[in-house]
Amino acid sequence: MLLIVLELIGIAVFAASGSVAAVRARLDVFGVIVLALTTALGGGIIRDVLLGVHPPTSLRNWPYLLVAGGTGLIVFWFHPQVAKLRRSVLLLDAVGLGLFVTSGTTTALAHGATPYAACLIGMTTGIGGGALRDLLLREIPLVLRREIYAVAALAGAVVVALGEWAKLPKGLVALTGASIIITIRLIALWRKWNAPVARGLEG
Amino acid sequence: MLLIVLELIGIAVFAASGSVAAVRARLDVFGVIVLALTTALGGGIIRDVLLGVHPPTSLRNWPYLLVAGGTGLIVFWFHPQVAKLRRSVLLLDAVGLGLFVTSGTTTALAHGATPYAACLIGMTTGIGGGALRDLLLREIPLVLRREIYAVAALAGAVVVALGEWAKLPKGLVALTGASIIITIRLIALWRKWNAPVARGLEG
Amino acid sequence: MLLIVLELIGIAVFAASGSVAAVRARLDVFGVIVLALTTALGGGIIRDVLLGVHPPTSLRNWPYLLVAGGTGLIVFWFHPQVAKLRRSVLLLDAVGLGLFVTSGTTTALAHGATPYAACLIGMTTGIGGGALRDLLLREIPLVLRREIYAVAALAGAVVVALGEWAKLPKGLVALTGASIIITIRLIALWRKWNAPVARGLEG
Repeated sequence: MLLIVLELIGIAVFAASGSVAAVRARLDVFGVIVLALTTALGGGIIRDVLLGVHPPTSLRNWPYLLVAGGTGLIVFWFHPQVAKLRRSVLLLDAVGLGLFVTSGTTTALAHGATPYAACLIGMTTGIGGGALRDLLLREIPLVLRREIYAVAALAGAVVVALGEWAKLPKGLVALTGASIIITIRLIALWRKWNAPVARGLEG
Repeated sequence: MLLIVLELIGIAVFAASGSVAAVRARLDVFGVIVLALTTALGGGIIRDVLLGVHPPTSLRNWPYLLVAGGTGLIVFWFHPQVAKLRRSVLLLDAVGLGLFVTSGTTTALAHGATPYAACLIGMTTGIGGGALRDLLLREIPLVLRREIYAVAALAGAVVVALGEWAKLPKGLVALTGASIIITIRLIALWRKWNAPVARGLEG
Repeated sequence: MLLIVLELIGIAVFAASGSVAAVRARLDVFGVIVLALTTALGGGIIRDVLLGVHPPTSLRNWPYLLVAGGTGLIVFWFHPQVAKLRRSVLLLDAVGLGLFVTSGTTTALAHGATPYAACLIGMTTGIGGGALRDLLLREIPLVLRREIYAVAALAGAVVVALGEWAKLPKGLVALTGASIIITIRLIALWRKWNAPVARGLEG
């Protein structure tokens, strides 16, 4: 139950990040909805394909599609001024990453994956939707450009796997994992943390 | 049987759209064939992965590969003058979309998917190959740029699902579904229908 | 056993090709590692998804991740001068292609695929990782631009499938298949073999 709520919130947030990016790229209303769906449902579909869940959960339950499509429509009509959009994509992306990595790791464990595989599948669930969004808009994906992206996702996934292994309450574990990811991403954005580029390429 | 014929025609048409796009991008003969194969078989492979059909149908039956590769080769040698090519891609794409959405929805139903899931998987089957084609050639996919693309696909998928639910003759249902999609797409291309872009972005 | 060793060497080589390409694109250290992982593990994950192996092998066994990530880190710190990098990507890519097509074809046969399906899945295993690498860096994939790419992969896959069918020793078959692919690719690079572009497009 908690898992489904977390996943639906994550879907709304990622749908918003996808549709804001689509509005910035000047797509029309249908393009915005398609990109909202892809960003919001892509990670979960990749997760289900890797776990062998057929057909993927989000293609079998209409609330997923409704939340993702509805969010896209809302963003299309009520999006804030264009100047603020770049920041919103990054912020929404951080929250969506936190929720998706957490729910992806928990789902993988529930399907019998080892903790090691569950961490990797959880990471992929969180990273996948945003990577599809950037690929479709012909941008180099955030996960390749943003230093602390994959690391934040991995940290949260490991916390969730450890918490489940220690049999801590699931709600607590999920919220802690998501919070860690969101906090790391927000601090990285706020402080403009930069990772080193290979030597000899500067200037 | 009807399903296989429809699918093979769809494969030929999508292979033609992929190889015409590849010729326009000045790829050599092998690049043209690879793009023909990807465009023609991509949607069906995505469908089989979502349905859990292993290995995908098109990788197990040589006619699929033969039709797709042969079409690529034919387009490479006999393609019309370059000036007319842009239009041909759009036209072929419309026919391929109609055939693939129809056969994808029918296949999903035959594998026990619910009508709801079958519609979404049918849409994905139709959209997938063309999206791969555009991604590989570094264009923003048609489905994001063309207003009535996903809607046309969805309309056809719903008609097929309803028809099968009402137990109408399969051939009739498939032809109706495909015709609806192709007609909507052609009218949209002919009338240059445009969907609204988000406010504040014009000019 | 031989299969695992071949696969790990292939992973290291493809990870190197991915991370060298990432260094050239001026990604930071985490971006380099993510691209190393994607290039190295992408082909095998696609293969496992097509064969219905859940979860994919490389997400269940830590040596895969360790080899891919470690190679990325090593390339990041010790990469040669930037000027030489373009050539290295092509060279490493040839070796990785040879090893991955071979191990992919063998794995598919071991999972009960027909020789025909095994050849196609082997090709896809070899081509997939490099195509993902190029897509993520927004380049048109090598397989579309390099004439003798898919053909070399197919030739090697057919040799492996024939060898297994004739029940020749597996080690010999694998090495022969890989050598054929690498040799064809290197000769193509060395002689700058070019395939014809469609008529009417020159100049």
